[in-house]
Amino acid sequence: MSSEFGDRIKVHIFGQSHAEGIGVIIDGLPAGERIDFDRINAFMARRAPGKAAYATKRKEPDLPEILSGITDDVTCGAPLCAVIRNSDTRSGDYDSLKAVPRPGHADYTAAVKYGGANDVRGGGHFSGRLTAPLCFAGAVAVQILERYGIDIAAHILAIGGIYDKGYDPLIDRNTLKNSAHREFPVIDEKAGEAMKSKIAETAALGDSLGGIIECAVTGLPVGLGNPMFDGAENLISRAVFGIPAVKGIEFGAGFASAEMTGSENNDAYTVKDGKISCETNNAGGILGGITNGMPLIFRAAIKPTPSISAEQRSVNINTFEPELLKIKGRHDPCIVPRAVPCVEAAAALVILDMYLQR
Amino acid sequence: MSSEFGDRIKVHIFGQSHAEGIGVIIDGLPAGERIDFDRINAFMARRAPGKAAYATKRKEPDLPEILSGITDDVTCGAPLCAVIRNSDTRSGDYDSLKAVPRPGHADYTAAVKYGGANDVRGGGHFSGRLTAPLCFAGAVAVQILERYGIDIAAHILAIGGIYDKGYDPLIDRNTLKNSAHREFPVIDEKAGEAMKSKIAETAALGDSLGGIIECAVTGLPVGLGNPMFDGAENLISRAVFGIPAVKGIEFGAGFASAEMTGSENNDAYTVKDGKISCETNNAGGILGGITNGMPLIFRAAIKPTPSISAEQRSVNINTFEPELLKIKGRHDPCIVPRAVPCVEAAAALVILDMYLQR
Amino acid sequence: MSSEFGDRIKVHIFGQSHAEGIGVIIDGLPAGERIDFDRINAFMARRAPGKAAYATKRKEPDLPEILSGITDDVTCGAPLCAVIRNSDTRSGDYDSLKAVPRPGHADYTAAVKYGGANDVRGGGHFSGRLTAPLCFAGAVAVQILERYGIDIAAHILAIGGIYDKGYDPLIDRNTLKNSAHREFPVIDEKAGEAMKSKIAETAALGDSLGGIIECAVTGLPVGLGNPMFDGAENLISRAVFGIPAVKGIEFGAGFASAEMTGSENNDAYTVKDGKISCETNNAGGILGGITNGMPLIFRAAIKPTPSISAEQRSVNINTFEPELLKIKGRHDPCIVPRAVPCVEAAAALVILDMYLQR
Amino acid sequence: MSSEFGDRIKVHIFGQSHAEGIGVIIDGLPAGERIDFDRINAFMARRAPGKAAYATKRKEPDLPEILSGITDDVTCGAPLCAVIRNSDTRSGDYDSLKAVPRPGHADYTAAVKYGGANDVRGGGHFSGRLTAPLCFAGAVAVQILERYGIDIAAHILAIGGIYDKGYDPLIDRNTLKNSAHREFPVIDEKAGEAMKSKIAETAALGDSLGGIIECAVTGLPVGLGNPMFDGAENLISRAVFGIPAVKGIEFGAGFASAEMTGSENNDAYTVKDGKISCETNNAGGILGGITNGMPLIFRAAIKPTPSISAEQRSVNINTFEPELLKIKGRHDPCIVPRAVPCVEAAAALVILDMYLQR
Repeated sequence: MSSEFGDRIKVHIFGQSHAEGIGVIIDGLPAGERIDFDRINAFMARRAPGKAAYATKRKEPDLPEILSGITDDVTCGAPLCAVIRNSDTRSGDYDSLKAVPRPGHADYTAAVKYGGANDVRGGGHFSGRLTAPLCFAGAVAVQILERYGIDIAAHILAIGGIYDKGYDPLIDRNTLKNSAHREFPVIDEKAGEAMKSKIAETAALGDSLGGIIECAVTGLPVGLGNPMFDGAENLISRAVFGIPAVKGIEFGAGFASAEMTGSENNDAYTVKDGKISCETNNAGGILGGITNGMPLIFRAAIKPTPSISAEQRSVNINTFEPELLKIKGRHDPCIVPRAVPCVEAAAALVILDMYLQR
Repeated sequence: MSSEFGDRIKVHIFGQSHAEGIGVIIDGLPAGERIDFDRINAFMARRAPGKAAYATKRKEPDLPEILSGITDDVTCGAPLCAVIRNSDTRSGDYDSLKAVPRPGHADYTAAVKYGGANDVRGGGHFSGRLTAPLCFAGAVAVQILERYGIDIAAHILAIGGIYDKGYDPLIDRNTLKNSAHREFPVIDEKAGEAMKSKIAETAALGDSLGGIIECAVTGLPVGLGNPMFDGAENLISRAVFGIPAVKGIEFGAGFASAEMTGSENNDAYTVKDGKISCETNNAGGILGGITNGMPLIFRAAIKPTPSISAEQRSVNINTFEPELLKIKGRHDPCIVPRAVPCVEAAAALVILDMYLQR
Repeated sequence: MSSEFGDRIKVHIFGQSHAEGIGVIIDGLPAGERIDFDRINAFMARRAPGKAAYATKRKEPDLPEILSGITDDVTCGAPLCAVIRNSDTRSGDYDSLKAVPRPGHADYTAAVKYGGANDVRGGGHFSGRLTAPLCFAGAVAVQILERYGIDIAAHILAIGGIYDKGYDPLIDRNTLKNSAHREFPVIDEKAGEAMKSKIAETAALGDSLGGIIECAVTGLPVGLGNPMFDGAENLISRAVFGIPAVKGIEFGAGFASAEMTGSENNDAYTVKDGKISCETNNAGGILGGITNGMPLIFRAAIKPTPSISAEQRSVNINTFEPELLKIKGRHDPCIVPRAVPCVEAAAALVILDMYLQR
Repeated sequence: MSSEFGDRIKVHIFGQSHAEGIGVIIDGLPAGERIDFDRINAFMARRAPGKAAYATKRKEPDLPEILSGITDDVTCGAPLCAVIRNSDTRSGDYDSLKAVPRPGHADYTAAVKYGGANDVRGGGHFSGRLTAPLCFAGAVAVQILERYGIDIAAHILAIGGIYDKGYDPLIDRNTLKNSAHREFPVIDEKAGEAMKSKIAETAALGDSLGGIIECAVTGLPVGLGNPMFDGAENLISRAVFGIPAVKGIEFGAGFASAEMTGSENNDAYTVKDGKISCETNNAGGILGGITNGMPLIFRAAIKPTPSISAEQRSVNINTFEPELLKIKGRHDPCIVPRAVPCVEAAAALVILDMYLQR
């Protein structure tokens, strides 16, 4: 109803930023899958805070404890529950914010929805911290998908208007794997350096930046997904909008296809390596909601981190008096690098789910 | 699992383009709602084919028959089933296409998914014709939402690179209602004339155009939607991608927010007319997946109609031989105008569903 | 949310007793399954009214029209929609009942739930007539299950305290098929004659009878169903209680197992015909919610038809005045014989659903 | 898909008997509800092991740790996650059982379903231990329901053929509360003493007993539940069959109604204390799946504990050789007393869910 998605596998995320813990249940995983926890930890480290100048200084090991669902490193068919303790919380930072909502955050909407009973500390259930269990779950899915020959990688396509190269729409597995998972995940390292500089400059001004993440999936069989409301686009978008700060998503040529003609946009069929293939990939690997065997490619727009040091205009929701608000605490000047594995995780879980629907 | 969406209200669409009929079940509508069928028909007429030069020449009255759920024009609490007969079908047009998939259509993906048993005539269950029952269901939702003070309208923001004015992000109910529901739904009629000319030119070349539809919702209370995976963005995107040809969606500033700083993008709070409001609306009325009382605004990218008269390269999926394919039959050179009420319908159903979740 | 069940296949029933029509969507059926409509009609004829002294005199052909999902008698992967027209309705019979609810019917509960907007004619959406589309859907499932080697049959175990022989808990396919589907479905025809006499006597007094239906499923593979809340017992009971008048269900030894010791009730394992088997079948083929390869056996208690000719005490729900109520119209003195295929249908749909979850 | 149920509130149970922990997510609880943890612990103590001669000697504090969803003892709207550590596990007891399934347990069905990867220790995910988090969740629901005037209690109706008095079908709140929650929950203490003696005798023989639990709910408003597949009977039965060892359920007169006539079984309407009421309550408070304001009453049949000391015949599932099996370890000779709060918990969660659907 809110914090869960999936059909064959259900991913149910719980926790608040400053509660005892956060975590995830993954129900419906195939039994008998061996999980490499070093790789899980490596995946999760990519979104962990505190590792670089552009990330929040909050430091947490964020290593999940497995409560159930895995015996001797192998999935046993029962729901997998993983818990991450919240250890480095400073709730005092947030006490004054209860009455004065931060612009761009869910403080106001949550206060109204939950009648003021919501946990405001650190954004509560709306915190970006909740993407840690999402990444854990996604890292599990990534390992299982690899056994089916399916690979997923995402990179930073843009930050603050500085653009990386895009993926080749016909990207193959090898190129995908080589491009992925750098410390600062871009294809063009020069663009990456420019992004980092811009982040540093913006952070120095107490401001923040957004960007675009591009994700590609290779090795998909033809026929995953469903018509109408459970197609690949529907399910991926539903999951990806679950990552805080995502405000847009497009598949294949996406918004650019709106300016093309049919003869430009249609992907002609051909035979390549003995398989039916497409000459181009404006469809982003999806036709009628169903995978066509081409790389599945999508892009997600990430808004700038709403927490900024600059003074902002807000309103006291009890007195309706205007208030000037300055956010203290530790915040990412740009969440985009840490959101890259989150986007991969959401995509991996949806694709595993579609795979298991076959 | 595929042709259904919704939580409090379930919308279940059935039918194929050339089957006996198509239709929809809407389960969970509040009982006791009077339905004005003249308005339903007027809403559906906006997507009906055959009305103008830019639309397919297939003519069907498309008037739904109500089988259940409404007695004496009032919802009775039982599932509403509405059926539309398929009368003007020319299945012969499609016989040769079974082995040679049309680029940009779901022919190939459906053939693989359903082992060749799928109904290929007119696109079968993947046909844009299935949006007729979606519009019926949406037209019902629109009427109920109006009683809660909620209004929805969409317009053509772009066709073939020609842009209409966008909605004012702070649009009010009156402006919204005046802008909506023209025969060619644009705000700037000059832009509309240019679009129509471009469609005519493109059609003459046997080609097609895509575009962008912008939708706004006013009068929403604060607090609809949920955190994480059942937020307003998640649910609207899942439904809107159910409209064939949608390849992207963005909310509020959307992809443009990726180039903003936090101080530019954050919507400062203020008090207006005795209510908490925002000075700007880059969030598009949604924070943390939950409505904040500002107009909810989103845009959907529509790819150009894949059916074009020009010869296209395809492959025989049985012999793997290349084939040159020419599509005959009746097709829209630009589906965007007819998709406008479909986008409104999808949004209305999701918003009614979120409203009933309260 | 109410009129739907299922996971891999969704069965969505619509209609009211005296609406234009009733019907069903079955979404998720495997594509490529040939359907024998003569057998569908034969299955549905088993529940059709008007065929015998113990059934209502309302006569309707009840032949479903297929609107979608089947092309040339083969499932095409799209949702199957079947509609049955309501032709022989006499709404006038029910007009006086709106204010004075019939004991044992849903008149009062529906009036409160739907604020009086519910369709009262003939019981509306609560009518036993809604089991006609359930039987249609079940008849489709039965045909598909047969191809997997799975057979389903039910018989009247008791009517009005007169008992048929029970199924042998170790029943095999052949015995099952021979026992099934008689005009009056009992194993012991003498018991059947006694039941018919008792029905006739009771009908002559203007009263009605209930009974028990026993259903068996053979040929199930080991491993269908799930632990906890989606086990075979959970899912079958949820569906079977959807048949009006069912007030109890038990699996295997059921309530009798409550009086056994563990050493009596446990089914010892053995090897039979080269397969792991059980010496007894008190579990009714289900352990931990999962099929164990033994026949799945359950029994459903059916309350007596609430519509009786005798005068009954009721209350005017507007004035709170007591009223004496006499029900006119056509009613079954015993619904049990016609409910037999309904129970098979519900079971078949759940089992097909569990089968497709594998 | 298996370990979850509910609509407005989702209850998702995880864990295995000998995993690190077990627990539950409850998503969708109303925000702002104060929870009394002393009462939670008292409720859970009723099912805790080790407290009496008739219960397993495994001792565990079973106190849940709240990870999320509650701040300062008040629900905050985010998913509530509670975890119980598994501390007193002796996995060695079970090692020999992997190849030789215990009769009456899910060992064999789980081994086949999960390809041998399932966690066999202590029954794994199928263990009765998983009812501890169910009781936690139910104890939360019970507190919230009380604020709506709804009370729930269950008692032991029978053990080993010895019967307690049944609830008066017209039971009121006060009688219900007085009858409930004794150390050995029966109405007639003499019957209770006889049950305890029989349990002791049976335990001395290394055997076990089953029984029947009767549950009543008072204070329900008219109109909860839905027609067809989401009625009160459907939803309660689906949840109650999630308690291991339940093999049957009946509502109101249940199987007894199968032997009644309509004139005997129908509950005549009357006016009592200014409200519409029924003179009798054979319907058990439910008509057409919807509550009618009378006490909701149901009974669940519990099979005897399958773990017995006596030697049993089984089969090695790898070699297909017969094996004689003796179960060691700690087991309840009769699970019925500890199952009483489990039945209340399942009912409370379903009823809260139906209440929130209004």
